[in-house]
Amino acid sequence: MPETAKPDFANWSCPLPLRDYPNIVMGHGGGGKLSSELVEHLFLPAFRNDALANLGDAAVLSPLHGRIALSTDTFVVQPLFFPGGSIGNLAVNGTVNDLSVSGARPLYLTAGFVLEEGFPIADLARIVEEMAASARAAGVQIVTGDTKVVERGHGDGCYINTAGVGVVPDHLRLGPSLVQPGDVVLVSGTIADHGMAIMSVREGLEFESAIVSDCAPLNDLAARVLEAGGNSVHAMRDPTRGGLGATLYEIANAANAGIVVEEAQLPVRPAVHAACELLGLDPLFVANEGKMAVFVAADAADAVLAAMRAHSLGADAQRIARVVADHPQMLVARTRIGSNRVIPAQIGEQLPRIC
Amino acid sequence: MPETAKPDFANWSCPLPLRDYPNIVMGHGGGGKLSSELVEHLFLPAFRNDALANLGDAAVLSPLHGRIALSTDTFVVQPLFFPGGSIGNLAVNGTVNDLSVSGARPLYLTAGFVLEEGFPIADLARIVEEMAASARAAGVQIVTGDTKVVERGHGDGCYINTAGVGVVPDHLRLGPSLVQPGDVVLVSGTIADHGMAIMSVREGLEFESAIVSDCAPLNDLAARVLEAGGNSVHAMRDPTRGGLGATLYEIANAANAGIVVEEAQLPVRPAVHAACELLGLDPLFVANEGKMAVFVAADAADAVLAAMRAHSLGADAQRIARVVADHPQMLVARTRIGSNRVIPAQIGEQLPRIC
Repeated sequence: MPETAKPDFANWSCPLPLRDYPNIVMGHGGGGKLSSELVEHLFLPAFRNDALANLGDAAVLSPLHGRIALSTDTFVVQPLFFPGGSIGNLAVNGTVNDLSVSGARPLYLTAGFVLEEGFPIADLARIVEEMAASARAAGVQIVTGDTKVVERGHGDGCYINTAGVGVVPDHLRLGPSLVQPGDVVLVSGTIADHGMAIMSVREGLEFESAIVSDCAPLNDLAARVLEAGGNSVHAMRDPTRGGLGATLYEIANAANAGIVVEEAQLPVRPAVHAACELLGLDPLFVANEGKMAVFVAADAADAVLAAMRAHSLGADAQRIARVVADHPQMLVARTRIGSNRVIPAQIGEQLPRIC
Repeated sequence: MPETAKPDFANWSCPLPLRDYPNIVMGHGGGGKLSSELVEHLFLPAFRNDALANLGDAAVLSPLHGRIALSTDTFVVQPLFFPGGSIGNLAVNGTVNDLSVSGARPLYLTAGFVLEEGFPIADLARIVEEMAASARAAGVQIVTGDTKVVERGHGDGCYINTAGVGVVPDHLRLGPSLVQPGDVVLVSGTIADHGMAIMSVREGLEFESAIVSDCAPLNDLAARVLEAGGNSVHAMRDPTRGGLGATLYEIANAANAGIVVEEAQLPVRPAVHAACELLGLDPLFVANEGKMAVFVAADAADAVLAAMRAHSLGADAQRIARVVADHPQMLVARTRIGSNRVIPAQIGEQLPRIC
């Protein structure tokens, strides 16, 4: 098993029946007594809600009124604990954010764990507590789950899949195909924080100010954006893997339009900028976990920007790009000295295992 | 990467943009161009449906009328291909079945892949085609997904998480707490087929008649059971990991009742019985992937049994046990010679990585 940052997890005490097994054993994934104990003494107390407590093969929930949004994401980040969060926070916020930028109000999550034999139960408990805290913060419930165990040397301690269900308001129309030349692109804050927080741990970089992941739930901010912009908001995205650059390319392709990025307007923290320089990375293609990009008609851009800046998660929001009819499916940067350059699409990824 | 049974997969030809990469590389999980190509040329053609084709961060679906059922399962089975199916069939049927035995009509699935660097894309394509075929057979749509890649030597080729959404009829009440002394326990067919199919491959056992997994979707059979039994059906379960024995223990605990199992009535194929003897396994605790246990009031048991036997997946259905007020939370077997013995609960599992 790879090394994980040791949790500072003084408050948790292992409940009695789990004490015989300080580390995960194969039987914890077997569907027998050990599996039940893990559910009863670790997952249930953390996630407690009525649907989960029934422990059926499926959670049965009240009817939902409106269109349903459904999303899934698997998290394989290394290390499992990093400045600003853990795989637990990511697993909840990642799916909450996928639903949020689709215009949905996130309601329910599922959680599927793949644990490695030998993984410390104290680490699992910390991850689960952080999932529970993130779920509370986002106002969602984790209503059903599953645990599998793989032999030592397989997996990497802990992988987590979450799937999420939300409800989309009837009137709402959002999507890359609605994006058109003239639209303005807003970003809710500094970019590349999450990716560089992970990299600074992996590479053992030390900076005067530590780089902290931006991992956060975007459901409330997304609701404020839609409130302020109405149908002038054409698309929202959370630029995770592949960074803001991959998101802009995705939308440029789907809308068959060009995008001009004002390099001077891209909000990047100085420490993040320095770390990117050191590692030869372009912050435009480094992952975020608590930022959104908004594609909005020009006449509503100021109102939406103001609404974002009024929210704690959007205080550093910026107008960073505009959609143009020229050079369809291509990103062009206007540099600080006023020249233009094409921003090439990334083939693979700069940073593996970032989420 | 562990060895996997080599697929006999003559019909698939790798689409052009994927041909440069016959095996999975880290970039396929990076959210860039390689990720997009995998989605566009492999997942979309196999799973094709309108919700998926939008490629949003979440799938947006029509409103659902009634209570919602939500379920998740991660599949880490080894080997990935086995007699009677593959991890792809399991991943779809497993979640379809969890929804079905909860009384829900399964509608939509999500799919989250964790792929190992170096995994053959032809194997992935075969798995994805088999998921698509199982989804068609069960009448469900795979509407959103996610792919992560981990370095060579981590993971085991392919892990799959599926989460599923279904709708539960308004009038339906099902659950272990409704099970009571006097109830009859029916099982829809032979037990232990899936577990022994996997074990016979792993252990290189050869039997006159090959043992084949029972992997199958139970949604239609479950609907027939509810039609025939109405509110006399108190609970349904699909006895996967831990086998029928774990399911009976789970219900005995939840209902605070005892269960008497008629050993002579347990349907076990001769080849499966022989393989269990050889490996020292009790078929009662070996996994199934296409069987259901039904807990039904005695006066409706014959009607439900007849309905099961009239269905192709229930032809070998049997009345195998009854719920009693004696010895609560304990399983007792009535043996072939008429004596009684306590069936001990399994602590861990007999067979790791069975699903």
